[in-house]
Amino acid sequence: MADKYTQLVNQGVGKSVARKLGLPQPAILRRYRPGSPLVPGPVVVLGDSPASDKLAAELLSWELDIRRHAVPREKLGAIILVLDNVQRPEDLGRPVLAAAASLRDLAPGARVLTVSRPAATAASPAIAAARQGIDGLLRSLAKELRAGATGNGILLADDVEATSPSALGAVRFFLSGRSAFVDGQFLTVSGQGGTLPPQADTPLAGKVAVVTGAARGIGADIARTLHRDGATLVVVDLPSAGDHLAAVANEVKGTALQLDITRDDAGQRMIDHAVQRHGRLDIVIHNAGITRDKLLANMDPARWDSVININIASQLRINEALLASKHFRSAPRIVSVASTSGIAGNRGQTNYAASKGGVMGMVRATASLMAGNGGSINAVAPGFIETEMTSRIPLALRETARRLNSLKQGGQPVDVAEAIAFLASDAAAGINGEVLRVCGQNLVGA
Amino acid sequence: MADKYTQLVNQGVGKSVARKLGLPQPAILRRYRPGSPLVPGPVVVLGDSPASDKLAAELLSWELDIRRHAVPREKLGAIILVLDNVQRPEDLGRPVLAAAASLRDLAPGARVLTVSRPAATAASPAIAAARQGIDGLLRSLAKELRAGATGNGILLADDVEATSPSALGAVRFFLSGRSAFVDGQFLTVSGQGGTLPPQADTPLAGKVAVVTGAARGIGADIARTLHRDGATLVVVDLPSAGDHLAAVANEVKGTALQLDITRDDAGQRMIDHAVQRHGRLDIVIHNAGITRDKLLANMDPARWDSVININIASQLRINEALLASKHFRSAPRIVSVASTSGIAGNRGQTNYAASKGGVMGMVRATASLMAGNGGSINAVAPGFIETEMTSRIPLALRETARRLNSLKQGGQPVDVAEAIAFLASDAAAGINGEVLRVCGQNLVGA
Repeated sequence: MADKYTQLVNQGVGKSVARKLGLPQPAILRRYRPGSPLVPGPVVVLGDSPASDKLAAELLSWELDIRRHAVPREKLGAIILVLDNVQRPEDLGRPVLAAAASLRDLAPGARVLTVSRPAATAASPAIAAARQGIDGLLRSLAKELRAGATGNGILLADDVEATSPSALGAVRFFLSGRSAFVDGQFLTVSGQGGTLPPQADTPLAGKVAVVTGAARGIGADIARTLHRDGATLVVVDLPSAGDHLAAVANEVKGTALQLDITRDDAGQRMIDHAVQRHGRLDIVIHNAGITRDKLLANMDPARWDSVININIASQLRINEALLASKHFRSAPRIVSVASTSGIAGNRGQTNYAASKGGVMGMVRATASLMAGNGGSINAVAPGFIETEMTSRIPLALRETARRLNSLKQGGQPVDVAEAIAFLASDAAAGINGEVLRVCGQNLVGA
Repeated sequence: MADKYTQLVNQGVGKSVARKLGLPQPAILRRYRPGSPLVPGPVVVLGDSPASDKLAAELLSWELDIRRHAVPREKLGAIILVLDNVQRPEDLGRPVLAAAASLRDLAPGARVLTVSRPAATAASPAIAAARQGIDGLLRSLAKELRAGATGNGILLADDVEATSPSALGAVRFFLSGRSAFVDGQFLTVSGQGGTLPPQADTPLAGKVAVVTGAARGIGADIARTLHRDGATLVVVDLPSAGDHLAAVANEVKGTALQLDITRDDAGQRMIDHAVQRHGRLDIVIHNAGITRDKLLANMDPARWDSVININIASQLRINEALLASKHFRSAPRIVSVASTSGIAGNRGQTNYAASKGGVMGMVRATASLMAGNGGSINAVAPGFIETEMTSRIPLALRETARRLNSLKQGGQPVDVAEAIAFLASDAAAGINGEVLRVCGQNLVGA
């Protein structure tokens, strides 16, 4: 569900009034529905490297309508710009201008996707300049797209091919409605991945997943989304949220575990519960978190310490138990919920931003420890998401906050959940130690 | 000079009217004046690591009024929070809350400075979380400070001591008025540096510096600032700007070189001119750049190619000549002007953002090539700066753009120039391959 303003300006009188007054007209975003087409039209694959040919051929096998050149005035579902082989900044012009010629033909909810390589590992200054130039280009372009279309980039580590399972998994995610509120972002694929599972309505079938803070809000929607994708759920929350938690557990046909995640033995209790009740543990989603906002000048130790303890210290303790457990060694996945506040900072949230910055530092530093078992750990960083919590922000401030991004609207909890479900899936096997923003290209988080 | 609005709300009737109406009240920033005190009051050094003791002792020798504990109601010039030794997120609370207690006592134009280590090289997830937590904390705190006070962080590579020459050079820069418009930023010190030159009014004495695009705007102010700091200047611009260029050359007592920087031999001509006229070449500032804004859908090859060629391809060619020259091997410095548009993207600037992203990629990839001769290459990324160019932006848009940062005002050209002069100095010897934003913690560039 879009917010009321977004609904209003997308129908009847509201639509024409908004247009006449020059008010923002956020689009109804294209979101994932099981069984619906991956993209809303043909996909043009541009670029002249061997990788672009291979990628186009591979995408043909997905039963997509693939073009190597745009046909004028045909509504496009996506433009994929393969720039893996640029040697200097001058190489960008030709493929980028070819894409430019098709931008007016993008269908609502279309995608622009670049596929390139990280500047940090470039063999020369000229290659690094070309690669980093794609970053500036894509982030600018994302700000120019309309009607719910988004622009994102995939960065392939130098030994990862564009047609490797994990690269294709990332392509599929970005093309799909699962990435509706991800905009202007780059995601690095550092491993080839095993095999890309076929497109399926239940990519998490057979997996057992723990979700913390699942009694309500984004956590409950994460549980629902993982359940829809086929996972067996263990939903975790405080005993005081027991009734809500039981309702969610019931809804997702999972089990409820009442647990204070700050307990020293919280990790072991999760493992024990999952193994005893469901025979295994594959996925842990660290979603539980609190805010205790105050300007730092007015901060007290209780507010500071509780946020640090619940939002990050507990995750570190739980991860230690997970890493030590023999029950969490078969391509295990951890996904943490960070925040754009942890990236860019936020007034009144020194404690929260420290904790969420901490989550991102933890994720990057834990990646190598997870890789040994074919596992991964990643984070999503939500921007402004429409929740019960944000609905309590004063109207004017909320209206400003939710429009301060390229999609001119807040995201939905399901947008965060979809990104998490993707990172928890086998399709994301080669993505490890990354932070993916789900923020509509929030200005505050750049 | 602050913009007219900022002047208005800082004096007499304008000040009280703005306060009553709740209008933004940007402060007149504390800017560097030769001979003026480094900070506007005592400096409190907090933290309990050995490094904090050593740093406090070292700063005493700068004739600063150093405290290890704040005295209530004493107006402070700066708080330095030494957090180099944090082992887990819980370690942050005590020193951070000690700093919190003194925030109300900061003098106008005061500084909060963290000194810590990069999360990327942490030995454990807990250390990484603590280190990255400082990032979220500092960026939040910077958004809470008032009256022209700023917050920034120094990241010391693991083998760099807090009292090494380059760490002290960075501390001096951030405490000083040279960093007036740098806010919410981290600067990594990756080398110890040789010896920290004493504080002097002419830290660039004896150096010969080339500045491109120096006939007007930011380039002219860079030339003026390097001249004030003691450098001998070669100012470069197109023949068509010859009169302006001659005037600047005359003002800074340097020489003018009329040169199209896109010429294949531009680098060699700079070297030849500097060596023939001034006997040496130490510093090259790549400032020349153009904008040719268009939505990508309306972009043409001429606009795209000219921006790429002038803003980045020419820098790559010139750097090749510099790196090959025997006249540029004695602790040489290159500083490039990037842009927050290249970091976060900007609507209508795909070409410009690609070129400025390219500059940053180039700088990072060229660092190792410069290090061999004790040299360095870095970039500054200006946000909204008050120039002739930005004065042509329509009023409403300009007013919004210049307030969209923590200091609620545009920067001055001299703010960019001061950051460049610092990076060009011996005090910055250990800083290499970095991009420093001069943007007042611009929301667009986060």
